[in-house]
Amino acid sequence: MLEGLILSIDAMGGDAAPAIVINGIEKFLKSTGQGRAARFMLHGDETQIKTLLKKAPLTAARCEIMHTGDVIAMDAKPSFAMRRGKGTSMWNAVESVKNGDALVAVSAGNTGALMAMSKLLLRTKEGVQRPAIAARWPHQQGFGVVLDVGANLDCDANQLREFAVLGEAYYRALYKKERPSIGLLNVGTEDKKGNAIVQAAHDSLSCSKLDLNYVGFVEGNDISMGDVDVIVTDGFTGNVALKTAEGAARLVGTFTKEALQGNLWSKLSSALNFVALKKLNEKADPRTGNGGVFLGLNGIVIKSHGGTDALGFSNALAVAIELADSTFLDEIERTLEALHDEDESLDIALK
Amino acid sequence: MLEGLILSIDAMGGDAAPAIVINGIEKFLKSTGQGRAARFMLHGDETQIKTLLKKAPLTAARCEIMHTGDVIAMDAKPSFAMRRGKGTSMWNAVESVKNGDALVAVSAGNTGALMAMSKLLLRTKEGVQRPAIAARWPHQQGFGVVLDVGANLDCDANQLREFAVLGEAYYRALYKKERPSIGLLNVGTEDKKGNAIVQAAHDSLSCSKLDLNYVGFVEGNDISMGDVDVIVTDGFTGNVALKTAEGAARLVGTFTKEALQGNLWSKLSSALNFVALKKLNEKADPRTGNGGVFLGLNGIVIKSHGGTDALGFSNALAVAIELADSTFLDEIERTLEALHDEDESLDIALK
Repeated sequence: MLEGLILSIDAMGGDAAPAIVINGIEKFLKSTGQGRAARFMLHGDETQIKTLLKKAPLTAARCEIMHTGDVIAMDAKPSFAMRRGKGTSMWNAVESVKNGDALVAVSAGNTGALMAMSKLLLRTKEGVQRPAIAARWPHQQGFGVVLDVGANLDCDANQLREFAVLGEAYYRALYKKERPSIGLLNVGTEDKKGNAIVQAAHDSLSCSKLDLNYVGFVEGNDISMGDVDVIVTDGFTGNVALKTAEGAARLVGTFTKEALQGNLWSKLSSALNFVALKKLNEKADPRTGNGGVFLGLNGIVIKSHGGTDALGFSNALAVAIELADSTFLDEIERTLEALHDEDESLDIALK
Repeated sequence: MLEGLILSIDAMGGDAAPAIVINGIEKFLKSTGQGRAARFMLHGDETQIKTLLKKAPLTAARCEIMHTGDVIAMDAKPSFAMRRGKGTSMWNAVESVKNGDALVAVSAGNTGALMAMSKLLLRTKEGVQRPAIAARWPHQQGFGVVLDVGANLDCDANQLREFAVLGEAYYRALYKKERPSIGLLNVGTEDKKGNAIVQAAHDSLSCSKLDLNYVGFVEGNDISMGDVDVIVTDGFTGNVALKTAEGAARLVGTFTKEALQGNLWSKLSSALNFVALKKLNEKADPRTGNGGVFLGLNGIVIKSHGGTDALGFSNALAVAIELADSTFLDEIERTLEALHDEDESLDIALK
């Protein structure tokens, strides 16, 4: 039996699993995870995992294989995953958290299936309407957190307010900042801007006596500026914004590459500039932000990008271990309780 | 009196008006507008404009000043603009289009005020529920068109379908492509993805017998790829996406600059690479995409970015002249008529 801080891993999830998973753990243990007492439950095909472990000695020394031959396909429907998912590597990875055998589950598998299983097995935290997916977003000074990025396409004002609480606790746990700032994504920063839903969420967050550092409306360009730590939005807008930003960043990257390889001079100078450009690539690398977190469940589930590689998976593990090491589940509970007490006293005052 | 193709200009709109406006026209006449028979009605303060015209001989030879001392403030509310806007440079610029004295109005002033006045003076085209704002979006191969980017925050399926028709005609007029492709922005490309509104719009666009080149759902990252010409979305999502992309592009630009000025080697090689980097800046320059168009009105109104400079304003004029020279207002009318005929025959079939 494993002891200490245990991460439950879906070894078969992801386009290039199980290789990226095992190599990702190995990379993690060599870099950010060095010296951390983390151990790993590997759910998946024993034969394949054992072969990979031969070249991953650090992982081999800190893991236990939980064999299953069943896997959820990357394009499986969430409904199928619910009905037929039992016993798959993904299911078992989440179930280990439910049973208390592990603190966090990590999977690079199908997002919809993972969310469906997580809700079924872990249940939504009391006071939370529906869980959200939070993404880390690179900016000038480091990282911001944006939620929801796709779990809830239509959200009402109460949900947006809950996202503020969930995102704030998550940011605090991950970046150890006492009072992270929270902004509500809108088409302008003036108080009167936006549709009825963001207006209502803005009013209730502005009036709240909770100790939230709510700074008001923010616009799309503010996300990359890094002036606000937590950006709250509905899952439709958040998903489109995240993917649009990825596309725009890639476009500028392509333009840069073209410019720097256009002629002999530029090729020569790019060669001289090798180190600087390498640093740039690292900074703008989308893999550094890998690791979306499901917030609002009775347990921690991390979703790694399905197309990620070992480096990306190791970054998702870094998020997992920060959260496992924190008290953020308890904090969410406390803040949500206060939020709902506030609602009730407001209801009474209105009667 | 001016003759020929006449553009009506709000000379006082924009953070740095009237200087950027007059200098923008001059720049336009020296570059893309060279040889075009365009003439300009300049609405605004005669004294200020005359002073600027001394250094803008090409503009001076092709313009007429329509004096007014009244200006709409950059932060005026649309309701104020409607009540008190009459006689301002913005109002008069739009009114000249209404009266048939000019083919297009261009303003870098307050967006909300310009839209309010345009609707009041020009009226919405028959069959259009509400006008939309279309933005040009740089991508790998050139430009795409995204709409709505802020005029209609909540849209139903019928509006999204109208945006498809409006955007398609606009793209055709601007880029002379026979059958531009149209995509509907969503959180995934599979048929079953998305909320009820995009689902309904998708169904009716897919079933339509109109000769639209509708390719189905697209995701945020597809906008910068350039595989689809016209991207349709509601004004809330479109506005957030546009600003988020600007922010992400600027962030990568900052990272690049930092990387290329980090040490002596990189400084030296950047100097060698001067021409390549200059080309890059031009390509990634947000001013090249300047010039949002109000679609769905009985007349053409172009909104230049309020904070733009002379180069940006000249790019908005390039859009203006392409549209003025085209038959796109008639085409919109024809396609919308066919769309609504289709609706009626569907209604009859259902009865």
